[in-house]
Amino acid sequence: MNELSQALPVTSVLIIGSGLIGASIGLGLRQCGVEVRLEDVNPDALALAQDRVSRTGGTGTPREPVEGDPDVVIVAVPPAASASVISKALGTYLNATVSDVCSTKTQLQREVEISGADMTRFVPGHPMAGREVSGPGASSADLFEGRVWALTPSPVTDTRRTAQMSSLVQQLGALVVMTTPMAHDRAVALTSHTPQVVASMVAAGLESLGDGDVLLSGQGLRDVTRLAASDPDLWTEILASNAEPVATALDGLIERLAHVRDGLRAGPSGASVVRAGLASGVSGHRRVPGKHGAAPVPYVVVSVAVADRPGELGRLFVDIADTGVNLEDVRIEHALGRPTGLVELDVDPASSATLEEGLRSAGWEVRR
Amino acid sequence: MNELSQALPVTSVLIIGSGLIGASIGLGLRQCGVEVRLEDVNPDALALAQDRVSRTGGTGTPREPVEGDPDVVIVAVPPAASASVISKALGTYLNATVSDVCSTKTQLQREVEISGADMTRFVPGHPMAGREVSGPGASSADLFEGRVWALTPSPVTDTRRTAQMSSLVQQLGALVVMTTPMAHDRAVALTSHTPQVVASMVAAGLESLGDGDVLLSGQGLRDVTRLAASDPDLWTEILASNAEPVATALDGLIERLAHVRDGLRAGPSGASVVRAGLASGVSGHRRVPGKHGAAPVPYVVVSVAVADRPGELGRLFVDIADTGVNLEDVRIEHALGRPTGLVELDVDPASSATLEEGLRSAGWEVRR
Repeated sequence: MNELSQALPVTSVLIIGSGLIGASIGLGLRQCGVEVRLEDVNPDALALAQDRVSRTGGTGTPREPVEGDPDVVIVAVPPAASASVISKALGTYLNATVSDVCSTKTQLQREVEISGADMTRFVPGHPMAGREVSGPGASSADLFEGRVWALTPSPVTDTRRTAQMSSLVQQLGALVVMTTPMAHDRAVALTSHTPQVVASMVAAGLESLGDGDVLLSGQGLRDVTRLAASDPDLWTEILASNAEPVATALDGLIERLAHVRDGLRAGPSGASVVRAGLASGVSGHRRVPGKHGAAPVPYVVVSVAVADRPGELGRLFVDIADTGVNLEDVRIEHALGRPTGLVELDVDPASSATLEEGLRSAGWEVRR
Repeated sequence: MNELSQALPVTSVLIIGSGLIGASIGLGLRQCGVEVRLEDVNPDALALAQDRVSRTGGTGTPREPVEGDPDVVIVAVPPAASASVISKALGTYLNATVSDVCSTKTQLQREVEISGADMTRFVPGHPMAGREVSGPGASSADLFEGRVWALTPSPVTDTRRTAQMSSLVQQLGALVVMTTPMAHDRAVALTSHTPQVVASMVAAGLESLGDGDVLLSGQGLRDVTRLAASDPDLWTEILASNAEPVATALDGLIERLAHVRDGLRAGPSGASVVRAGLASGVSGHRRVPGKHGAAPVPYVVVSVAVADRPGELGRLFVDIADTGVNLEDVRIEHALGRPTGLVELDVDPASSATLEEGLRSAGWEVRR
């Protein structure tokens, strides 16, 4: 990135909020030799986070905590408190770049702007590294390694400060995606929030099924409904923070579903409508990021029958390693009522024959 | 099952249609010592299937092919041809039980009934063992091992013949689910056909996203849209064969989605509506069959960072085996733009500490 040459240097960072995300940012930056200060309204969380960060050895020159203003302030407090804490930080540290970690951006940026804060120094961010757990005890210096970290500067944001945050985020191992607040919120509505609602609503439809009939389901249902186990309270809050973009995405989804439904009810004359809908799904699916953010490629699935006891998977993966073939993905499909499962291995089409032959000669039952 | 004591014996089975399913049934029954005859309109497919079946050693007494009527006829031809082939088989083999393998049942049974065939000898079936591949070359004697095989007898079906098919299907290792044609079709509409349509329509919504914005997605999107890569032609045919039950299931889904959308647009007063929708998803998700058909239990997810090179997964699974902990499920979550991935291990909550400690002491970076 050319703009990096103009990035402001970063010697010290203040992190307000020392939960999982804040403490992990602290650990990661400390490892890069950046001086880190933490704040938290909860003294116990703060003590735990400070202890973890102080015990992290930096690869750069260790620095004693210095007094004075930080170069960058990262606000990692709960969404409801973010706007006021950001505005206050911009008013307190008059030379600092201020960023945040909220998962939706439009409304937050509007609230900060309304507060009259200096928007030229505000570089909003969203690290996409959610976890099932929270708190500084779960923090990790490489939580952001290989994760996307969106930055959504406003038109008035100082580009040198945007470059500064971009550089800092990349030091944490994250992949920077630069976008606008509205494009960000529309994207997460489509890629994260709508899938959650859909998974929940498909699962809700199963409540009426008989006990035997619900057995008539396979891996596809498990994939589609996996997210439905998420915490309703947490997700009610997340969806509310992005209400209109999610509602708009649901409008579009409902329209597409109704179109297919009407095609099905139209009988043979509706087949072309159904087929066109499914074909647009194939096109859209090609846009889902594959491994390492690469465009998805068609993998070959090699299935192996595996007994359900400790050690079998280990034996299988050792034999896979012996073939020298790299796996793109792995799924375990459990067999109903039987002590066996199918392990599905996604591999490059060019490698599948090598893998199959290697596993067969090692005694595995391989299916394609 | 008590009724099994009254099941008619099976010495010989005629399988009409020697594709993947027909040939696999032939291989499996032959291994059980049942005399198997195959038919197919395609002489090449028939020759290949016959060759594979004849080379399969039975565990029972080998039998020479005998002339005369089979005890059971299983029709495994494409859906469009099934009704007429079933009716003809019922008319040709006047003492035989006739079954089929079609994935939807109501319309088929109506068509057979309208043909005037003897419905007392028709025991419709649906083995749930779909594959990405087809043809007798991919057949396997244990294709049905641990799979659900639905039987949907009509009220007039002779119960001894239903018991006979149930016994035969269990010899193939399948789990029999006895239900009615309409309950079957409604169940697969909810558990298989609707998830396919939903996956396709969620994926279709991604077509409009910018290249950078589409990166703002995670494992949830990949799970929900995995089915969207399916063949549109094949699925247009499958959906058409169950059009009204799928349309009705989509009606319900659309209604639930619209309810959540309206809740989102209602602002704070709509939060309870959104929360109730998500909570009903949690209830429905509990009904999704878990491992081995057991009720799903809440697993703990243990995440391990793994470098993306051959052998790493093998080393990991060997170390997992050394802990003695059995895995409930495994997922690989790839990190964008980085040569590392997270392996997510689902384990019994009681075993998670043992697993974590064991892996940490083996040098793995474990996250919870």
